[in-house]
Amino acid sequence: MAVIALMTDFGTRDWYVASMKGVICSIAPDASIVDITHDIPVGSIATGAFTLLACYRYYPQGTVFVAVVDPGVGGTRRAIVARTETYTFVGPNNGVLAPCLQEADRVDVRELTRTRYHHEPVSHTFHGRDIFAPCGAHAARGVAFNRLGPRVDDFQTMTTPVPLVQGSSIGGRVLHVDRFGNAITNIPLSMVRETLGEDHIEAVVGRRQLPYHRYYAEVRQGRPLALEGSSGFVEISVNRGSAARRFGLKVGSRVVVRAQSSR
Amino acid sequence: MAVIALMTDFGTRDWYVASMKGVICSIAPDASIVDITHDIPVGSIATGAFTLLACYRYYPQGTVFVAVVDPGVGGTRRAIVARTETYTFVGPNNGVLAPCLQEADRVDVRELTRTRYHHEPVSHTFHGRDIFAPCGAHAARGVAFNRLGPRVDDFQTMTTPVPLVQGSSIGGRVLHVDRFGNAITNIPLSMVRETLGEDHIEAVVGRRQLPYHRYYAEVRQGRPLALEGSSGFVEISVNRGSAARRFGLKVGSRVVVRAQSSR
Amino acid sequence: MAVIALMTDFGTRDWYVASMKGVICSIAPDASIVDITHDIPVGSIATGAFTLLACYRYYPQGTVFVAVVDPGVGGTRRAIVARTETYTFVGPNNGVLAPCLQEADRVDVRELTRTRYHHEPVSHTFHGRDIFAPCGAHAARGVAFNRLGPRVDDFQTMTTPVPLVQGSSIGGRVLHVDRFGNAITNIPLSMVRETLGEDHIEAVVGRRQLPYHRYYAEVRQGRPLALEGSSGFVEISVNRGSAARRFGLKVGSRVVVRAQSSR
Repeated sequence: MAVIALMTDFGTRDWYVASMKGVICSIAPDASIVDITHDIPVGSIATGAFTLLACYRYYPQGTVFVAVVDPGVGGTRRAIVARTETYTFVGPNNGVLAPCLQEADRVDVRELTRTRYHHEPVSHTFHGRDIFAPCGAHAARGVAFNRLGPRVDDFQTMTTPVPLVQGSSIGGRVLHVDRFGNAITNIPLSMVRETLGEDHIEAVVGRRQLPYHRYYAEVRQGRPLALEGSSGFVEISVNRGSAARRFGLKVGSRVVVRAQSSR
Repeated sequence: MAVIALMTDFGTRDWYVASMKGVICSIAPDASIVDITHDIPVGSIATGAFTLLACYRYYPQGTVFVAVVDPGVGGTRRAIVARTETYTFVGPNNGVLAPCLQEADRVDVRELTRTRYHHEPVSHTFHGRDIFAPCGAHAARGVAFNRLGPRVDDFQTMTTPVPLVQGSSIGGRVLHVDRFGNAITNIPLSMVRETLGEDHIEAVVGRRQLPYHRYYAEVRQGRPLALEGSSGFVEISVNRGSAARRFGLKVGSRVVVRAQSSR
Repeated sequence: MAVIALMTDFGTRDWYVASMKGVICSIAPDASIVDITHDIPVGSIATGAFTLLACYRYYPQGTVFVAVVDPGVGGTRRAIVARTETYTFVGPNNGVLAPCLQEADRVDVRELTRTRYHHEPVSHTFHGRDIFAPCGAHAARGVAFNRLGPRVDDFQTMTTPVPLVQGSSIGGRVLHVDRFGNAITNIPLSMVRETLGEDHIEAVVGRRQLPYHRYYAEVRQGRPLALEGSSGFVEISVNRGSAARRFGLKVGSRVVVRAQSSR
């Protein structure tokens, strides 16, 4: 019984996700449908890409991810399916799948042109229901991958800002602000460890220096800190508070992690 | 393994939907529970009815829909189950099921009076948990339909405003504003095609004339258009924007679709 | 096929719940995952505890509840699993499980220290994904309970305010305000019945006397009332309106239920 994991920017108050699920249940009744989220900000390919990247590795082998953040629906962007050694990804070729595909050793990408796997008639504005959901369901049922469509030799990549290392200082940016107000940066924990070691590290947000810790409770309630985040990146947080509100952090805000200055 | 698809106005932050799901899992452990939405505006039978209508046909044969938008709970409205040739619908007899039932060729309606299929003791304010969920689960398990209750010879219908055709002009109204700010009208695409053909069509919203297209990308970003909507009705949209905000559209707002005026 | 029911304060717009579900699907692919809610107010152990209490009894025997409202994650609070005669509960030992455990005749509590049932490496800030979800999934798969960890002889209890009976008057407090604006008190219906009987009862909110009824429709639309709530407690409601807004009720607000004063 394959898992089909859905991520969209459709929200949950209209019938859009429900229509996709109906199509999936009709084609692959034994699949387990799991919602990643449907609250990606409307049209935000970058947030969708980061969200999928942050959770996909926790899913079992064989999972089919259907990711629909598709502001160009009906235009020239292609609909694709991609298979790595472990997973299958379905979505528009606009970068939303890119970080996951770029992590794979090998990836086979196909364009979803085979109308026999579509839900006909295909609307011009809702490929989530008419192309991505049914093709994902057929993939989950085990249709031979090469029958899903002709090979695509390239796919849309995604350029996220790369942190800049200068001496014993790493300059990065905020990639995501979560529900709790934690600001998740693009600075990988592994980069911090390699560049700065394990101790005597601090972060700088605006003009404020913050201690660098492993968990919230290492500072008092209401105090800010930089944190070894559970997604594998440095986070700026406040123990039981919102770092985003405290420091006005948004996607793109600058954060520095560096060796502690001796004062 | 039958699908049980749930739609309510209970929201997702309280335990109401969770209680219904517990009851369903207890009675029909092999059923697949799918959420249509729980964010129908509180007590809005019209929105519930339209939402169900917009997605039910994508579900597999045998699906049991449990629709609880029930402002009259505990009063005189009856609790019903209805079977069409393809589906089973459970809910209050207040119109929320009506558009789906009115589309069926044949429908057998029963009143849910058999207490053996209720969750006892039945509360006076939460029939979703105590009547609709358990009866839906028993229906999904395959209880003989005529045992669910005595036949009901009529059911509450729903009167949505019907578009008015005058010469080469169709006057309609907004039925729903979705998450993206698209305003979905009551004007069926088939009516447009029969009345106005395929080309040289425009829409009028307030004093503004809009081009009539098949998908967003046919106009530039930020430009408004009338659209062949994926639900089968004309929609007023803005490419990557909100038509509702741009034009102040709400449920009930007037929209005209007509042959293009030659100017 | 066991049910695993999830409740968190993680919200649904980030990937946190999705990561937990991925972990669960990997360990217990045949389990049915049900969402109770993920919209517990951030860090509100009391709301989480009451929400779980209000719905758990509707789930089938053998259900595993994973409840993660965990403001002290990474600190000294223990991670526990508890088994009653009917259910298994997994979560932090901070009171969120307490009301359910206190209702059980017998409960066996274990500390989740066995790393073989964790998702390694365990992060310091996301035990939902790395401890609670995998241990819940292993419990659902049928791992012998005593292998999950060493026995805990006590567990964190929860003190909710107890209603005070004085003569023919019961003084209580609001425990929860739901989506509809109903204010659910800590006054059990059974206490009302034992203390005041079935008739000639009224409630007092501020200076306002309200009639005591069994369902909304016993008063006219827009009128307030005290209600035999479906959760087993007295509720303050407005027929098709919000009692919380009308009377400014919040968690902790005082409510009195008493024999009707003869005037």
